[in-house]
Formats: sequence, structure tokens, C-alpha cells
Amino acid sequence: MRMPSPTWRPSLDRALEGNSRSHQHRFVQLATVRPDGRPAVRTLVFRGFLGDSSDMVFTTDARSAKCAEIRRSPEAEICWYFAGTREQFRLYGGVRLVDASLDEHLHEARVLHEARRDTWRALSDETRASFAWPTPGEPRDPGFAFPTTPPDAETPLDSFALIVFWAREVDHLVLDGNPQHRWKYVADSSGRWSGQEVNP
Amino acid sequence: MRMPSPTWRPSLDRALEGNSRSHQHRFVQLATVRPDGRPAVRTLVFRGFLGDSSDMVFTTDARSAKCAEIRRSPEAEICWYFAGTREQFRLYGGVRLVDASLDEHLHEARVLHEARRDTWRALSDETRASFAWPTPGEPRDPGFAFPTTPPDAETPLDSFALIVFWAREVDHLVLDGNPQHRWKYVADSSGRWSGQEVNP
Repeated sequence: MRMPSPTWRPSLDRALEGNSRSHQHRFVQLATVRPDGRPAVRTLVFRGFLGDSSDMVFTTDARSAKCAEIRRSPEAEICWYFAGTREQFRLYGGVRLVDASLDEHLHEARVLHEARRDTWRALSDETRASFAWPTPGEPRDPGFAFPTTPPDAETPLDSFALIVFWAREVDHLVLDGNPQHRWKYVADSSGRWSGQEVNP
Repeated sequence: MRMPSPTWRPSLDRALEGNSRSHQHRFVQLATVRPDGRPAVRTLVFRGFLGDSSDMVFTTDARSAKCAEIRRSPEAEICWYFAGTREQFRLYGGVRLVDASLDEHLHEARVLHEARRDTWRALSDETRASFAWPTPGEPRDPGFAFPTTPPDAETPLDSFALIVFWAREVDHLVLDGNPQHRWKYVADSSGRWSGQEVNP
């Protein structure tokens, strides 16, 4: 059964449309918890929604620290600030990695496997080449020449992974206006959303 | 004894200077851990460094969820993306709240007390008025008129607090260039910084 679109989705679609002139409108910050319980946050590029769902797709190097964090603690909060319309979405929810180890023969996995391949194809040559580089965050060898030849556009490298995020709570703050406006949305255990206006 | 300026500080000062035409260059994302261990992140405005240190000052409503998080788990990561120069700083470190309960007669507290008062003075009337509003995040009463008369500019309301953050680890990523450049800096237990270039 297909769930209805979440009640916050039209607001996010409007923000994406209203800020589309800025290339930054697809930059979000993903917060996770490290294996030792400490907070972590970094900027990622939103790559689109998964099919006709509201699940969000990001890319990552499978060797990065955030992948270890997500494997151990598959929950995250996304902060998405739109400068043009002065509004912020905070989205809390579940997160999973889609990497080369995914068994594509499982029914649910087929969509994810195809999303990984399609997202790889859509990357620039320059970005694809970066997945053949040495492990991110390790000391850089000044004598090493980083490969710049792009890998095959049809076959994702093993270091290429998707991060798929699905929201369970959304906090939407609109800064224009005095007072400002803020809404909270929560999904119940069956995935139905309810929302209300709260104090900014 | 005054510590020397951290080795990453000149890079951050250059980024602040190089992006100063955009009013967004002072927006950062602060990630914390909620009392139940889940990640949280939101956008804050950088209000400046504390005195001649590299401690960073932000403002908050003392009734907001992030204050409860900081009181329980006084560690945070800041993500600071500069769009104009395409670079990101991730700063990990300690964080404390400076609110009305601070005993200003303690020597260390005097600087913080003055910073709270000076930061309050520097806010706009509109922002000062927002600290007299009902508790952030609670359901909004549609019949309630939010006060717009600004409170006294000399006396911070009890709901006004500073967040003071001091870094212990810094990760600086510069996206221009192929390959990009990335550096990591770490402070030892005596506060001395060391840095090295790492793989992007």
C-alpha cells in the first residue's frame, strides 16, 4: 500500500522551488552520533527523493567516518536552511547505507540497487574520480598523484554508497514575519503524519 | 598565561573576511546529543569571539531544547560552510551556557557575565522582544498577541543565554581544486594545537 505524501512535503517542495536559483539550495547538514556517543555533523548534497517516496538520497564514500556512525546508530537529524526564503527544516528520522554489499535479488533491495546505479551515473566525472582516491581523512601522502581518470560511469566503485534518510519528525521554521512561524510534524507508528503550529 | 592563537584560526579569519559580503557567512549548524542519546542540529548565528580568545559566542533562548541538551552533555560539533569560498570547517569541542544564574562575582564568570550583557545590548530591538515570547516549541495559542515592545536594552531577560564554544578538534575542507584540500587540527590536553593535511 502506498502511503499518502507527508503533510510537510508541500512546504519543502515550495522551498526547493523558491530557492532553486542558488546552487546551495541542495546543501544540508546531517547530524549523527559517533560510536563513542559524541555528536558529529557535516554538509551533504541532496540528490533527490527515492522514486515517488519522500525518502531522501545523499551520496558518501563508504570509507568515511559517517558510514561507521550510521551502521552503528541508524538515526540522524538533517538541518536544511534555505537562505533565499529564510526558512529552516529540521528533519529527524532513520537512515541507512546502500553500498556494494546490498543483495540486489531481495525485492526491497532492487529499488535501492537501481538508485545507487542511477545516482552514480548522474555524478560528474570529477566526482566519480574522487571515489578512486585514498581513504578520506587519512594523512595525505605528498608524493601520491591522485587519479583523475573517471571510472566507468555504468559500474559504481565499491567505495560509493548512498545514504537514504526517511523523516519521522519535522520542525519547520519560517523567519520572515514578526513573530515568525514554526510548525512541528510527527509521524505515528503507522506512518501517518499530524502537525501543529508551535511558538517560534 | 595566555595561550597562542590556535593554528586553524588564521584560516577561519580568512574565510570570515572572504565571505563577508554574504549575510549568511555567520550562520553555522550546531550539533548536540539529546538526553536520550539521539542527534540534534540547528542553525545559529555566530556573534563573535569571546574577548581575545578563539571561544565562539552564540545566543539562545534558555528555555529551548538545546539548552537542556547542553546542560546534560556539554560537547558539540559545529559545521560552518562558507559558500563564497567553498570551504567547510567542522569544529568539535566543549560548550557551556551562560545564563542569568551565573554568579558574576567569580573571577572567571565576570568575563562571561559582561559578554552576556554586551551581546544583549548589541541585539536588534526585534530580537530582544522575542525573548519575552512564550516558551519556544510549545503549541501556539492563536488568540495570544506576541509582545513587540522591546525590553530594556541594558538588562538581559532571564530567558536570554549565551552558548560559548571552544574547539578541541578542527577539520577544514577546501572544495576548490582537484583533488580538494583538507586539514585536521587537534589540541592536546595542555591546549597546544598540531595539524596535518589529510586526504579529502
